[in-house]
Amino acid sequence: MADKIISAQQPDGYLNTHFTHIQPEMRWKNLRDFHEMYCAGHLIEGAVAHYQATGNSKLLDAFSRYADHIDATFGPQPGKQRGYCGHPEIELALVKLYHATGNARYLELSKFFIDERGTTGPDKPHYYDLEARSRGEDPEQFHFKNYEYNQSHRPIREQEKVVGHAVRAVYLFSAVADLAGECEDPSLLETCYRLWNNLIDKRMYLTGGIGPSRHNEGFTTDYDLPDETAYAETCATIGLINWNQRLLQFEGDRRFADVMERGLYNGFLSGVTLDGTKFYYENPLSSAGNHHHQEWFLCPCCPGNLARVIASLGNYFYSTGPKDLWLHLYAGNTTEVEIGDSPVKVQQQTRYPWDGAVTVTLGVQKPHTFTLHLRLPGWCDAFHLAVNGETLAAKPEANGYLAITREWQAGDTLEFVMEMPVRAVFANPAVRQLEGRLAIQRGPLIYCLEGVDHGDFVLDQISINPQDIPNFTATYRAGLLGGVTVIEGQGKVIDEKTWEGGLYSSRPAQEKDIAITAIPYFAWDNRTPGEMRVWLRSG
Amino acid sequence: MADKIISAQQPDGYLNTHFTHIQPEMRWKNLRDFHEMYCAGHLIEGAVAHYQATGNSKLLDAFSRYADHIDATFGPQPGKQRGYCGHPEIELALVKLYHATGNARYLELSKFFIDERGTTGPDKPHYYDLEARSRGEDPEQFHFKNYEYNQSHRPIREQEKVVGHAVRAVYLFSAVADLAGECEDPSLLETCYRLWNNLIDKRMYLTGGIGPSRHNEGFTTDYDLPDETAYAETCATIGLINWNQRLLQFEGDRRFADVMERGLYNGFLSGVTLDGTKFYYENPLSSAGNHHHQEWFLCPCCPGNLARVIASLGNYFYSTGPKDLWLHLYAGNTTEVEIGDSPVKVQQQTRYPWDGAVTVTLGVQKPHTFTLHLRLPGWCDAFHLAVNGETLAAKPEANGYLAITREWQAGDTLEFVMEMPVRAVFANPAVRQLEGRLAIQRGPLIYCLEGVDHGDFVLDQISINPQDIPNFTATYRAGLLGGVTVIEGQGKVIDEKTWEGGLYSSRPAQEKDIAITAIPYFAWDNRTPGEMRVWLRSG
Repeated sequence: MADKIISAQQPDGYLNTHFTHIQPEMRWKNLRDFHEMYCAGHLIEGAVAHYQATGNSKLLDAFSRYADHIDATFGPQPGKQRGYCGHPEIELALVKLYHATGNARYLELSKFFIDERGTTGPDKPHYYDLEARSRGEDPEQFHFKNYEYNQSHRPIREQEKVVGHAVRAVYLFSAVADLAGECEDPSLLETCYRLWNNLIDKRMYLTGGIGPSRHNEGFTTDYDLPDETAYAETCATIGLINWNQRLLQFEGDRRFADVMERGLYNGFLSGVTLDGTKFYYENPLSSAGNHHHQEWFLCPCCPGNLARVIASLGNYFYSTGPKDLWLHLYAGNTTEVEIGDSPVKVQQQTRYPWDGAVTVTLGVQKPHTFTLHLRLPGWCDAFHLAVNGETLAAKPEANGYLAITREWQAGDTLEFVMEMPVRAVFANPAVRQLEGRLAIQRGPLIYCLEGVDHGDFVLDQISINPQDIPNFTATYRAGLLGGVTVIEGQGKVIDEKTWEGGLYSSRPAQEKDIAITAIPYFAWDNRTPGEMRVWLRSG
Repeated sequence: MADKIISAQQPDGYLNTHFTHIQPEMRWKNLRDFHEMYCAGHLIEGAVAHYQATGNSKLLDAFSRYADHIDATFGPQPGKQRGYCGHPEIELALVKLYHATGNARYLELSKFFIDERGTTGPDKPHYYDLEARSRGEDPEQFHFKNYEYNQSHRPIREQEKVVGHAVRAVYLFSAVADLAGECEDPSLLETCYRLWNNLIDKRMYLTGGIGPSRHNEGFTTDYDLPDETAYAETCATIGLINWNQRLLQFEGDRRFADVMERGLYNGFLSGVTLDGTKFYYENPLSSAGNHHHQEWFLCPCCPGNLARVIASLGNYFYSTGPKDLWLHLYAGNTTEVEIGDSPVKVQQQTRYPWDGAVTVTLGVQKPHTFTLHLRLPGWCDAFHLAVNGETLAAKPEANGYLAITREWQAGDTLEFVMEMPVRAVFANPAVRQLEGRLAIQRGPLIYCLEGVDHGDFVLDQISINPQDIPNFTATYRAGLLGGVTVIEGQGKVIDEKTWEGGLYSSRPAQEKDIAITAIPYFAWDNRTPGEMRVWLRSG
């Protein structure tokens, strides 16, 4: 496969069959709309992954030559084009390539793309304006009206809100976070934090989906979070996860891990069926019954993107320092990490997220003093911690992690039990689409109702009294949906038999009791097709 | 103006400047998509109105020649095309032309268009398929997929549901009702009643708006009535009014007058600003604050259509028979009608719809025995009736009218007082978008909340207890919106100050009291732009 790909590469390193076979005259002529460097970025990421997985540098070498070609074409030096891709991606790929090859030119090129993006001046028209005019087009005719769409409306350091196409935004921010870790430039991390606050406080779905609008596949205004028409592209949640995974590495603040976990267990995982054969591009939080996973898409970014996150999931779980081991996520797994040049085996035994009990076993070759940082998830109010059977009275640090410093012995076992009550969740009253509604959450999982569990009722005929939710039960059902914990309780439903009118009436229908069964949002649309709702009427 | 229009007419009677000046080769070649006969129909309607208003037959004669040309081109006879217009309109115009000229060929042509529409057979492809192929097009590529869009998917007598483009549908049905009155064919009226039941019982907005979807400017499925995205084109409500006005003439059944009144006072009248200068194409029942009347439209059917309804409003109020006078609508007016060859002056004095009291004064030249039929509106549960000051214990007939037969004397006065309490209205529980919601109605008027009357609150932060609504007060405000009766009462609103979370929280915000002011729906978007809602949260 690698040979086949490489065989399409041009003598100058260029590799994009659309532009070598179909539109050769357009090479690098429309960075705004075409995805030339975006595709290059994904090829480079693939090459780095191939090298890391196999040790074979064949693809890495080929795509380094492609990166060299791009570096020779774009940059601040005289004779080069001062352009950047309409769809960010190559910026973060170049940082990966720099780490894989050690070639600092790739880091410099990434930095150029980030710094140059959206710059204009008295004698400096916007690059996409110049480019459009040289194609004989009027820049004003840009389909998306302004450059917020691709986050080049102004330099990244001057951006105050998360705008435009959602995947473009979080890919760009991921590269900014990468560069914040590589360069002595505090403005990059400040930019990330500022944009993160806007996104997480005002523009993120409960599921970790982002970008409500189909029109621009992206952002609209603060607190605009319609559920049924939510676009919430799978790739956007992947970008959100990746950006937060990067931000988490700076100060180990759990708020970034919380977002990562929210996305992974909800709006990301909903993007694939349980059997792994069909996908969502869009992940709405409500459906009239007409939204279903598909095998493929005309624009097929999501299936492959989802597959690579699942394949590389291990990378999201742990971080290490010279005297530190960080546990960000919980799931049954074993791994080996290096702490201060010594190998440490780590094993997690748990049924998480069905159960909040995690047993961590550490395998050190000799007694080894380091700090174990256990993330106390933001959703968790009560927990119990014991080392080798002895209760430890730990309090979370300011960053939300429990820090346990001791001399670890071979076979030391840590018991961490997070309580997982069933909870009602409400949206900020500024969200006009969600007034008077509640969602059900347990642990990291957002739940939903599906039509198949609720007879012939229209799901919004059901209402739930938030005071009843603490009495709802969580039960693991091995035979359901590949094994899930369902949440059951009592709600009210409109009794259609008591409706006396035609289409309208001044007498309302009465309500009656109904047994509610909620399933994890990620598992919806895997049974008889029908309605789905995350946000339920509170009554 | 008439001379100028006539000067564009071709020697063969044809008159459509687009096809004489821009696409002459396409004349009558695309009945499916172009609006050639639709335009002819409106021209003919205009000519009839011009003749009725002025007595001058100049335009009537010219457009009769156009109708003759169409009659010579289309029809069942050998050598003629068996086509019909993609947008019904000429069918009802030809009935008007028949009445104005007495020429029965126009009635026959209308009947041909109705009977031919949607017919296919083993040796008879659909006309629009044939037509597309002769243009070199693949009929399968029709933008709207199937001929439900223009109600030619099957013959009208075999149609069970109201489908497709809403204006097309009700224009077609109006012509069917016209022909039902002209022809000895009970299947036509049966068809109207069958489709009416589907529309009124399952597909009509509370305001008399019809056609929820922007995609086809028309119908979707039973009980699909989203409020904020309601298309509900002004012209569609006009067509609904016209169709119901026709159906009302058969048996004088108030249900048709009720729909006519619902449309006129709500979803039709919302289509124009109070000053008459700006218009709606779409009449949603909820707005985030971004829907505003406009001066003109690229497709400018609605403004002119609205103007002619207002100009001809008198035609909707009364019907007469040999010994009968029917009062369908209430409003201050005077008119003179003929009952059994004798003129009768009719005067209504009333502040309706602000007040339910109507004084009817009858002016007969000599004592005259006939039956006065007063419509008891469907919304009215209690009334008082008196003739010359004496209470009359009348009960509505099966058709919903109060029938008063007596020998009327000059100056007889009738007092009819309809009680107009403030009412909550609920939608059928099958309407998934309106569960847990109520609307406010008083008399024929549907009310709404506007942002301008409710501070900075998001309107859906407000909830109303339906039990409180009978205590709401109705107050006429002469200085408001040109004089309207507002409805005031107490509701609850989310107290944003009590919200302790960020974007999501497991603690809900608390509620506090708020004074509610509702205005008639038709008067919205005439003050400071902002949110609007008809359907309010019931709490």
